[in-house]
Amino acid sequence: MPVPAPNLYPDFNTIRLSHVCLNVSDLAASRTFYTDMFGLQVTDTSDSHVYLRALEERGHHSVILQKSDQPGTVEVMGFKTYDEADLDKAEVYFKSKGRPTSWVERPYQGRTLLTSDNMGIPLEFYHKMDRLAPIHQEYARYHGVRPLRIDHFNCFSNNVDESVAFYNDFGFRVTEYTEDEESGKLWAAWMHRKGGVHDMAFTNGKGPRMHHLAFWVANPLHIIDLLDVMATTGYVENIERGPGRHGISNAFFLYILDPDGHRIEIYSSDYQTVDPDHEPLKWDLKDPQRQTLWGAPAPRSWFEHGTEFVGAEVKEPALNATPIIAP
Amino acid sequence: MPVPAPNLYPDFNTIRLSHVCLNVSDLAASRTFYTDMFGLQVTDTSDSHVYLRALEERGHHSVILQKSDQPGTVEVMGFKTYDEADLDKAEVYFKSKGRPTSWVERPYQGRTLLTSDNMGIPLEFYHKMDRLAPIHQEYARYHGVRPLRIDHFNCFSNNVDESVAFYNDFGFRVTEYTEDEESGKLWAAWMHRKGGVHDMAFTNGKGPRMHHLAFWVANPLHIIDLLDVMATTGYVENIERGPGRHGISNAFFLYILDPDGHRIEIYSSDYQTVDPDHEPLKWDLKDPQRQTLWGAPAPRSWFEHGTEFVGAEVKEPALNATPIIAP
Amino acid sequence: MPVPAPNLYPDFNTIRLSHVCLNVSDLAASRTFYTDMFGLQVTDTSDSHVYLRALEERGHHSVILQKSDQPGTVEVMGFKTYDEADLDKAEVYFKSKGRPTSWVERPYQGRTLLTSDNMGIPLEFYHKMDRLAPIHQEYARYHGVRPLRIDHFNCFSNNVDESVAFYNDFGFRVTEYTEDEESGKLWAAWMHRKGGVHDMAFTNGKGPRMHHLAFWVANPLHIIDLLDVMATTGYVENIERGPGRHGISNAFFLYILDPDGHRIEIYSSDYQTVDPDHEPLKWDLKDPQRQTLWGAPAPRSWFEHGTEFVGAEVKEPALNATPIIAP
Amino acid sequence: MPVPAPNLYPDFNTIRLSHVCLNVSDLAASRTFYTDMFGLQVTDTSDSHVYLRALEERGHHSVILQKSDQPGTVEVMGFKTYDEADLDKAEVYFKSKGRPTSWVERPYQGRTLLTSDNMGIPLEFYHKMDRLAPIHQEYARYHGVRPLRIDHFNCFSNNVDESVAFYNDFGFRVTEYTEDEESGKLWAAWMHRKGGVHDMAFTNGKGPRMHHLAFWVANPLHIIDLLDVMATTGYVENIERGPGRHGISNAFFLYILDPDGHRIEIYSSDYQTVDPDHEPLKWDLKDPQRQTLWGAPAPRSWFEHGTEFVGAEVKEPALNATPIIAP
Repeated sequence: MPVPAPNLYPDFNTIRLSHVCLNVSDLAASRTFYTDMFGLQVTDTSDSHVYLRALEERGHHSVILQKSDQPGTVEVMGFKTYDEADLDKAEVYFKSKGRPTSWVERPYQGRTLLTSDNMGIPLEFYHKMDRLAPIHQEYARYHGVRPLRIDHFNCFSNNVDESVAFYNDFGFRVTEYTEDEESGKLWAAWMHRKGGVHDMAFTNGKGPRMHHLAFWVANPLHIIDLLDVMATTGYVENIERGPGRHGISNAFFLYILDPDGHRIEIYSSDYQTVDPDHEPLKWDLKDPQRQTLWGAPAPRSWFEHGTEFVGAEVKEPALNATPIIAP
Repeated sequence: MPVPAPNLYPDFNTIRLSHVCLNVSDLAASRTFYTDMFGLQVTDTSDSHVYLRALEERGHHSVILQKSDQPGTVEVMGFKTYDEADLDKAEVYFKSKGRPTSWVERPYQGRTLLTSDNMGIPLEFYHKMDRLAPIHQEYARYHGVRPLRIDHFNCFSNNVDESVAFYNDFGFRVTEYTEDEESGKLWAAWMHRKGGVHDMAFTNGKGPRMHHLAFWVANPLHIIDLLDVMATTGYVENIERGPGRHGISNAFFLYILDPDGHRIEIYSSDYQTVDPDHEPLKWDLKDPQRQTLWGAPAPRSWFEHGTEFVGAEVKEPALNATPIIAP
Repeated sequence: MPVPAPNLYPDFNTIRLSHVCLNVSDLAASRTFYTDMFGLQVTDTSDSHVYLRALEERGHHSVILQKSDQPGTVEVMGFKTYDEADLDKAEVYFKSKGRPTSWVERPYQGRTLLTSDNMGIPLEFYHKMDRLAPIHQEYARYHGVRPLRIDHFNCFSNNVDESVAFYNDFGFRVTEYTEDEESGKLWAAWMHRKGGVHDMAFTNGKGPRMHHLAFWVANPLHIIDLLDVMATTGYVENIERGPGRHGISNAFFLYILDPDGHRIEIYSSDYQTVDPDHEPLKWDLKDPQRQTLWGAPAPRSWFEHGTEFVGAEVKEPALNATPIIAP
Repeated sequence: MPVPAPNLYPDFNTIRLSHVCLNVSDLAASRTFYTDMFGLQVTDTSDSHVYLRALEERGHHSVILQKSDQPGTVEVMGFKTYDEADLDKAEVYFKSKGRPTSWVERPYQGRTLLTSDNMGIPLEFYHKMDRLAPIHQEYARYHGVRPLRIDHFNCFSNNVDESVAFYNDFGFRVTEYTEDEESGKLWAAWMHRKGGVHDMAFTNGKGPRMHHLAFWVANPLHIIDLLDVMATTGYVENIERGPGRHGISNAFFLYILDPDGHRIEIYSSDYQTVDPDHEPLKWDLKDPQRQTLWGAPAPRSWFEHGTEFVGAEVKEPALNATPIIAP
């Protein structure tokens, strides 16, 4: 059996995924994409950065757009801990795993620990972030796809078994997974902290790379609205896959690409997984309904394209198993 | 039986309701209400008028806001005929009924016949109106309640039997009606030309007055969106009744009031009534599900408030029957 | 310009498409598909036939399933006329066009004229059909995709220009069309009588064959519901294309195949076209958004598969132009 | 300030609300209401009990209907703990608060601790419940309002300040609350464990009594569907309030009554509250949008009717403040 038993008493308490910093080439174009078109809200802006939050979020930012000469890369993925002491415990923990650690200054965040996972994905942990006044009942702000909150990250890993073991060790619990029946190895896995299907997921492929970043929306119709807007405002080429229903996670989904090729999932539905004895669901790599419950396979780009992490070397996957790909 | 047999071969061919001219006190405030908040599109504007269309309409206007020293009155209701010859036939027809007729100049309209119905409601008929480029696939324009087209008028009549007989005579067909079981008289009736539940409806009350003007929207969720926006942008007092499902017409509805008290219905669903042998549905005035399928009665204002027509004397209703009213 | 001017004063008055008779191999399997899964209502049944209506229809049938040794063929397409006299005028009209005509007995229908169009598509016209009690407010019946009414037919024609000219002549009006820019010929056209985008459409291909039969549903979410049900009740292979938004007609669509290969479109949105001066919209065959506003091309089967009409010889198309097809 | 600081390190770890046992007079009638009409799934049944779960739940039951000679009372409210040891800690904890404790046998549950809160509400805690195979992708089962999971309890308390203090002490965190501005006392409060707006809420009134039990649904349209079904299958009188949007919690809601008068809320939306520093939102008792964002006040029954707990004496509320009530 490929999925490790959950570690219900991890060394430190990670509450949830929190934010991502994306390197972009044209700050104005990216801002237009994420705000005017997509519907995120600007919380601060400078010559080099745009800070964004979704409509129900009270933390200062869930996406940071950073002007960069390495556009199309990901600077760091952020997570929130339960308390300040968890940060110190996290430092000890990651050091014990042989990972680099340092304390970094981040605007609007309290003490922030920078480290990386076993594949080299840059991670940062904090407890405090500036809290902003709620805007979820300022309905005049709702437009685009009406994004309510950041939902999860999904990364290519060149060894999903190893990635899952690493995150499992500090308390991420597997909710669903895909096994390559031939090798008995994991092809993909979905892991959570906050009580939904995932905070972090891994997919077999050249890695580490970010596969996508996801936002939660309340209603499939908002996804249809977004498609209509994208299709008629010059973004039709940015639509990659969907809409559809995933077998895995049961979510109604759409995948789009931002101007630098960062992939965004818009994600509706999810289910509750707070029970510590919630059993993971297993899918077979060759089951076509795994990808899309309704049968349509994903395009090749979806299995191959991703955006690299700053400073993380990309390696070929250990597992050479092929999913069903659209012709 | 109170509903007359339909006149399948009327003297002239009215295609559909077309537009209304509303007298308002503050053109800027009304424009904000109908465009920024509600979602209609401006097609022309002057110091005294704002012309508006809904998102799938190609005719120049379906609502005209007219600055007036009689705000809260209705100037005229407009209808489109099948061809130019129908206008001349209509002139003959209304003259034969003893109604005043005149040919009037209307911007963006071709030859326009001004007349009035048996109760004094000012009506105008035209065949040609300037046609505009379609915008129904310019999805970036969609906001507010996403109004697609004008759907119908509803007027208080002081004698619904007489109003129905008058419109029936020139081809309007009853789809549903409410009978006062005691007197055997009509309390309300819905009449169509274009193949839906109604172009024009009448409700017993002090009349003639406009009860409401309705716009068709594709989805009940747009109505929920509008409520959320109105509730949080200073228009909560303009929400009068709903949301709910009418027993009559089976429509999902909401009633709101514009800044001058003109009532607007937002209307979703409807059904097809093009068959000439489509049987009208009868409802009992005392059936609470007639008003709202789910049981909640309408507030008193809904039965009493309306906006008067310019030049039409308002009379007490002939029928003194009381519907169920919210306490 | 390839689209003829509409004939606003045809020889007889066709109100709308009405019904279709489909030949099937296994009456029980087809009944399960159309009722339990899809949501149509049985109005009568025998050893050889099942009569079905959709939820807002009051006519006795809009689909007839007929047990046949030619399963996967279409017996006839039916249309309703405005009055009885129109049937006699239609007989004269079709005879004048050199088409065969006969009066046939059809259960639940009054006098019925059987004829065929210029390509050999069998058509029948009637004025009277048994009317049934309304069920559109019996909400416990709503399931499957909640089909409200039959919306349109779509047929392959081996010469779309000729098909359009033929139907235009008896009053069908073009609302949208696709032109092959090179030859200046029509590649597809949508034509209506009842005031929506179409009662009948034609697509270039081996013809005549039925491309699909469409039902109108109120909400895109019902289409998502149907996909979820089909995907988990053994019908995943019957899903052919979608969901998506058509550029043409602006409809939210899904295409599925019944057990005998008859294609069904589920169709939501449409717009009002009752104005006699409603201008047709032109699309370029090479515009990818014509097919799907969001960019995804249709699969090859969608351009090639259709079901033949009983007694109509299928011919190669005159026009050899290729649309964009999914790889 | 009336809301106590959250206790982030409670003596034992409650994961979430889990289930309720409702006493009913007619087991068959209640079963029909909760399954055929409402959409819950039966997991077991006997002469005296019906066990039910919602569509995404994997625990054996979230509602138990119990035939009783005290129909219209609530037997017990159940909660799940993080592990077995939490049960023993809970026993110590409730004893230390002077509450009665006992270990009870419950079918399908592991060790179960029965106790009661400071007002006498009977509570039970367990860690293990039989887990059933997932059915959330068996879409043919979805009907009624498509309930996905139990969401929260809401109880009348005769002293909301005291109730909030009691639950706060074992880790429930306040997300929103209503203050009586005059007295500075709490009029209502919403408290969670599982990361949403609430697992348990309290409202000022004769207490303790259950105000309602809530189920989470994915889409406001399912609520509209339920209203249509209830209105046309003999349950129109069971509709009490809604649909509407709460100011508090921002949820789209409907309240209905079961055959014994137990109130059920159907609840859509919610937001994520897992952050330990999530700030509670304060509402003024006199703010009409607190109840319903769109302005319509709740009916009197909503403030007065509730169902009693077995063995708990009902007392008059300490606070005599009046909300806005529909006339």
